[in-house]
Amino acid sequence: MEALRRMIETQGVGIGKDIVKVDMFLNHRIDTGLLFRMGEAWAEAFREDAPDVVLTVEASGIAMAVAAAHALGDLPVVFAKKSATVVQNDAMLQAPVYSFTHKTQNIIRLDRRYLPEGSRVLIIDDFLADGEAVRGMMALCEQAGAHPVGVGIAVEKGFQPGGKRLREAGVKVLSLAIVDGIEDGIILLRPEEG
Amino acid sequence: MEALRRMIETQGVGIGKDIVKVDMFLNHRIDTGLLFRMGEAWAEAFREDAPDVVLTVEASGIAMAVAAAHALGDLPVVFAKKSATVVQNDAMLQAPVYSFTHKTQNIIRLDRRYLPEGSRVLIIDDFLADGEAVRGMMALCEQAGAHPVGVGIAVEKGFQPGGKRLREAGVKVLSLAIVDGIEDGIILLRPEEG
Repeated sequence: MEALRRMIETQGVGIGKDIVKVDMFLNHRIDTGLLFRMGEAWAEAFREDAPDVVLTVEASGIAMAVAAAHALGDLPVVFAKKSATVVQNDAMLQAPVYSFTHKTQNIIRLDRRYLPEGSRVLIIDDFLADGEAVRGMMALCEQAGAHPVGVGIAVEKGFQPGGKRLREAGVKVLSLAIVDGIEDGIILLRPEEG
Repeated sequence: MEALRRMIETQGVGIGKDIVKVDMFLNHRIDTGLLFRMGEAWAEAFREDAPDVVLTVEASGIAMAVAAAHALGDLPVVFAKKSATVVQNDAMLQAPVYSFTHKTQNIIRLDRRYLPEGSRVLIIDDFLADGEAVRGMMALCEQAGAHPVGVGIAVEKGFQPGGKRLREAGVKVLSLAIVDGIEDGIILLRPEEG
């Protein structure tokens, strides 16, 4: 998506070999105009898959999920919550999410009432790297008897295996920008297809 | 705001003397249509105060801040992040927020670049009870040399002192619904003025 790519090029910061900092327009400060254009891009790609709910994880996925849901006709959004430990509660769906960046494991959890059986779920998240967060959300869907119809990502790290694995498993993934690497602080964006 | 009040009456859950659970349409599952109507209500109230940025705290404030910012012409949103400890970092504005509910103190922090000196700040949050989160955000504004022009709240607990204190201090506060108490699980909403 051209507007996001341009923003990453002009304002994104590459750190080391694999950190893409987009705090200034996506993850701490939000460029609201850009956000809603991103929502429209996801909606355009996934409308044909007829999602009826948008799922994300707190915190930085929430704004993007809201924008996508709005563009799809104000679908409901549900956001999984993060906690350090498993909660003993039958009403809660729970899945582990390992963070390779922080070397920690979180549990994401979701009240099962908010993801009814048979729901058609569009999963939205800010980053896709190893794919752990998406895998966790797909596990929540499976526990709920809901169907993930697609995965919309803002920034995919194309040099990490998450996106490749999802696509090989037959999951429809739309990443609005794909980063192929970082060299001397420069974020290398994959050219857009088509 | 009638639509929010009706949703609280039909779907909100009152627990004990002071817990108002709005998970099913605001804080875990989000009713996106309602969310954007709430954004319009805040925008209508605060447009005359000419805010140029919307400030909130992660996680559940983010969706509401985005809706308000959208209705005000896609203003930027900044969301303060919560952490358990003070970070030694001059680039970070930091303020303590005590939670009377959880009896814990969090630090909220914000990269000072995202709240430029002289900014006119609309503060948005989901709940106003003791007013600690709003007080923390106003402290961040003061450190930044920014001006809070108003506070937009979804649900105010009118039986706790936060809203009264802010109004007595001359702060413009718009709470879309005010809860006066909980009796036997019933949420008592204050009648709307005017």
